[in-house]
Amino acid sequence: MKKIGVVLSGCGVRDGSEIHEAVLTLLAIDNSGAKAVCLAPDIELDEVNHLTMQDTGAKRNVLVEAARIARGDIADVKTAKAEELDAIVLPGGFGAAKNLCSFGFEGPKGSVQPDVLKLIRDMAAAKKPICAICIAPAVVALALGKELAPKLTIGNDPGTAQGINGTGSSNVECPATECVIDRDNLIVSTPAYMLAGSIAEAGKGIEKAIKATLELIK
Amino acid sequence: MKKIGVVLSGCGVRDGSEIHEAVLTLLAIDNSGAKAVCLAPDIELDEVNHLTMQDTGAKRNVLVEAARIARGDIADVKTAKAEELDAIVLPGGFGAAKNLCSFGFEGPKGSVQPDVLKLIRDMAAAKKPICAICIAPAVVALALGKELAPKLTIGNDPGTAQGINGTGSSNVECPATECVIDRDNLIVSTPAYMLAGSIAEAGKGIEKAIKATLELIK
Repeated sequence: MKKIGVVLSGCGVRDGSEIHEAVLTLLAIDNSGAKAVCLAPDIELDEVNHLTMQDTGAKRNVLVEAARIARGDIADVKTAKAEELDAIVLPGGFGAAKNLCSFGFEGPKGSVQPDVLKLIRDMAAAKKPICAICIAPAVVALALGKELAPKLTIGNDPGTAQGINGTGSSNVECPATECVIDRDNLIVSTPAYMLAGSIAEAGKGIEKAIKATLELIK
Repeated sequence: MKKIGVVLSGCGVRDGSEIHEAVLTLLAIDNSGAKAVCLAPDIELDEVNHLTMQDTGAKRNVLVEAARIARGDIADVKTAKAEELDAIVLPGGFGAAKNLCSFGFEGPKGSVQPDVLKLIRDMAAAKKPICAICIAPAVVALALGKELAPKLTIGNDPGTAQGINGTGSSNVECPATECVIDRDNLIVSTPAYMLAGSIAEAGKGIEKAIKATLELIK
């Protein structure tokens, strides 16, 4: 059974993984007959109250909160080995841009959390597929942009697209119900809630992205 | 467009709504062309660390945490009016048994959170469908058991089934991929993670339960 690493960044669209995208990723992996291996970095996040959408000033732990989405079945991304995974998927949510990397604050000058960076680089070096959803292509762009110049989705916000292009990657426009496949670099991406108006719309793109990712596994 | 109230109990299987069940409920409602109206009580919950599965001793707010699943689009269940909804759905998770009612601590002698109780009773009185997933049939059993003696799923744990039967309701065994429809009382239920071994399995039952619920709307 294929093992697909799912790199989470917390639990909630404003300070962690976008929950719908993460769950629809797990559903698509299971429906494809593969096994999801949930992973997250053991670092702090800045808590956002999702009712008021205000920063609370408090901290939570990314791995502990991501465990909610994984129903407890999750490991520190530091322990993940590229040789034990067939592909990885990064769902979106602001946590991808704020916890997995600093794109949300620093744009193309940002850096990637070291454990996540190592996993992404190891997967790319091993020619194994990487799938990124919503804003998560920013993590891949920062990790691999200069070296591989991947083609990625990021929605249609000009500033964000410019940020992606500034990493050496290229933004490709694509509707939420579809995905973009960079066959040279084995990188799949879909805009999900960067563009989607509904969960069903995001789900269609995620389902296609996961299917395409699994088909790229050699 | 039909409006379906989705009554959440937090965000996480051990102290709130089971996240997969809640998201798959929102997906099924959207796929059916109806509109989900997320609701939760404005009360405290006892936080559980989902990595260690231990109580932390800290409190969180049910409505604020449930807002993570709803991407902020949620209202206090106290403000919900049965006349403005066509049906309601209660996803599972321990939050249903601990926050929406006290079945988790007191079994059939438990009580239902007053705002949730009012909404369930008002929906039943208006002959509008109620759908309950996983352990959430316990909330419906406590709210309506004595009056309506509904037939409900709760999985196959003998103690839990006995608790349900003790409310005046009757437990009906059913696989996770199916649902039970009590046509006399317009109550639909599916066991989801009370029995499901995977997210895809839970999803099949939830999809059927939401479809059946929408078909019962007059």
